[in-house]
Amino acid sequence: MQQITETIPDKQTIAQAAASIAPYIHQTPVLSSAYLNQLVQGSLFFKCENFQKAGAFKSRGAFNTLLSLGKDELKAGVATHSSGNHAQALARAAMILNAEAYIVMPRTAPKVKVDAVKAYGGRITFCEPTLEARESALEEVIDKTGASLVHPYNDYRIIAGQASCAMELLHQTEKLDYIFCPVGGGGLLSGTALSANYWSPTTKVIGCEPKGADDAYRSFATRNFVPSINPKTVADGLLTSLGSLTFPIILKYVNEIITIGEKEIITAMRLVWERMKIIIEPSAAVPLAVALSGKIDLKGKRAGIIFSGGNVDLNALPWQ
Amino acid sequence: MQQITETIPDKQTIAQAAASIAPYIHQTPVLSSAYLNQLVQGSLFFKCENFQKAGAFKSRGAFNTLLSLGKDELKAGVATHSSGNHAQALARAAMILNAEAYIVMPRTAPKVKVDAVKAYGGRITFCEPTLEARESALEEVIDKTGASLVHPYNDYRIIAGQASCAMELLHQTEKLDYIFCPVGGGGLLSGTALSANYWSPTTKVIGCEPKGADDAYRSFATRNFVPSINPKTVADGLLTSLGSLTFPIILKYVNEIITIGEKEIITAMRLVWERMKIIIEPSAAVPLAVALSGKIDLKGKRAGIIFSGGNVDLNALPWQ
Repeated sequence: MQQITETIPDKQTIAQAAASIAPYIHQTPVLSSAYLNQLVQGSLFFKCENFQKAGAFKSRGAFNTLLSLGKDELKAGVATHSSGNHAQALARAAMILNAEAYIVMPRTAPKVKVDAVKAYGGRITFCEPTLEARESALEEVIDKTGASLVHPYNDYRIIAGQASCAMELLHQTEKLDYIFCPVGGGGLLSGTALSANYWSPTTKVIGCEPKGADDAYRSFATRNFVPSINPKTVADGLLTSLGSLTFPIILKYVNEIITIGEKEIITAMRLVWERMKIIIEPSAAVPLAVALSGKIDLKGKRAGIIFSGGNVDLNALPWQ
Repeated sequence: MQQITETIPDKQTIAQAAASIAPYIHQTPVLSSAYLNQLVQGSLFFKCENFQKAGAFKSRGAFNTLLSLGKDELKAGVATHSSGNHAQALARAAMILNAEAYIVMPRTAPKVKVDAVKAYGGRITFCEPTLEARESALEEVIDKTGASLVHPYNDYRIIAGQASCAMELLHQTEKLDYIFCPVGGGGLLSGTALSANYWSPTTKVIGCEPKGADDAYRSFATRNFVPSINPKTVADGLLTSLGSLTFPIILKYVNEIITIGEKEIITAMRLVWERMKIIIEPSAAVPLAVALSGKIDLKGKRAGIIFSGGNVDLNALPWQ
């Protein structure tokens, strides 16, 4: 398995990742909405990773990485610093594969996220809410336990796992003109772009990013890495910077990155709740918000939209 | 078509209703949840009428009734008094069949419900919020327009339409030990009981009712009609009394009616939102709340649960 950590995942590597994680994840459904189709005068196909195990696509990469570890590595456990969907997905995957998951979280993390990681048996180390504190706490945990670091996105095994989502979508639907995909660290977007390139090269891949966290947009436009500094958006899964592995893939295989405002994100999220009766999180609403913006003419077109996750604090909805 | 209005729908009548409404409604999916199965140590099969057209099972009965009307009747339109899902479903069905829908609503109806009926082209007459005012306003509308009255539940055409939901469920799943179904006026429950009797007579049908609106429970227990007086429950679709047509069917074919408290209803609703990532309304959570209560031992059993609708005011969630 070692080779997949060293080079950009090829078609076979992604197909293998999909096959190896298949027993542990859902092949999520692709839904549609007559109402939303009417709004864009085209056909939208929603890949529902909000229904994925642990509530987000992150389970794909987490399982693929854990399944790539040797027996002894697995025995020593896995570690990451995250307070979001990656932490939950990693904790759950580790629980199912009988490994420990050590999760470093800022002591300011919302209780709902702490509880979710605990429910999956994750062992939490709290730290101060700074990047330095997180990184040094993580280093300490790894030194002490010998656990393997599982980065949330900057790892080819993670990218190959996340790529299985678009691979599935392309097999579940007839020819798509576009795939709209959210971008934070770029694990999902780079995987999506690779899968489109391998299985449907005429499908254009559009990265979708909040205006308040537009580092990927600016990196893509200037072809120079721009870090995410003080991002401000309701889409709390899309705050991070691109990675050294995800950025080159995005530069090469993504067609365009489009940004969208907070109001549009919240409107799109609410439309999905009201019209489709399914729960998506703010980050997952970003691609639909871009699709509804009219920045790309979808009249008569067929577009896949990745609903990346559905983990929401029901006590704090963004329209309240 | 006239015969179906005069006798209890037989097997063929329900199958015909299902076939005639098929082009206009969704065959809704049956979902499951590993987490909820674990809670009851059995297998739960959720029939997702929250995904139904207009957001509730009511579209089934509305279409079946409209499709039973003659051309001239349809031309004169249809009328009802309701502020809930029946009004929306009737307005939408009428719009699609090019008929007028005259909806009498109390002037105190929530704006979100008024807007939904308007969005489907319904012509609203507002009245005072009393049953007398509603009935006299409805009579006036019918006198003036010649529209056909479409009662929300006390009509065999409505019952046959709603029965198609359980018929589908029983075809979509292997043998069920139970079906848990909410009960308000009894249209859905009587139809469910008929379909179970015709297609799976060993399946026990459990009517599920809020404690704060337990008229059906008391009617069933005493075998005497008890009206719903001052009901108080978050399950606003289950406030009405049983009808003269629905009650006898329920008495004959339903196995048991079980009541459940407000706290349990809200907990069940929230569990579905959090764990299944789908939106159900409070009334739809009542059957799951009963299933989770332990009042029936579901260990090793297979139970269908009807998620009757998903129309919720997202600005006023019951746990807030």
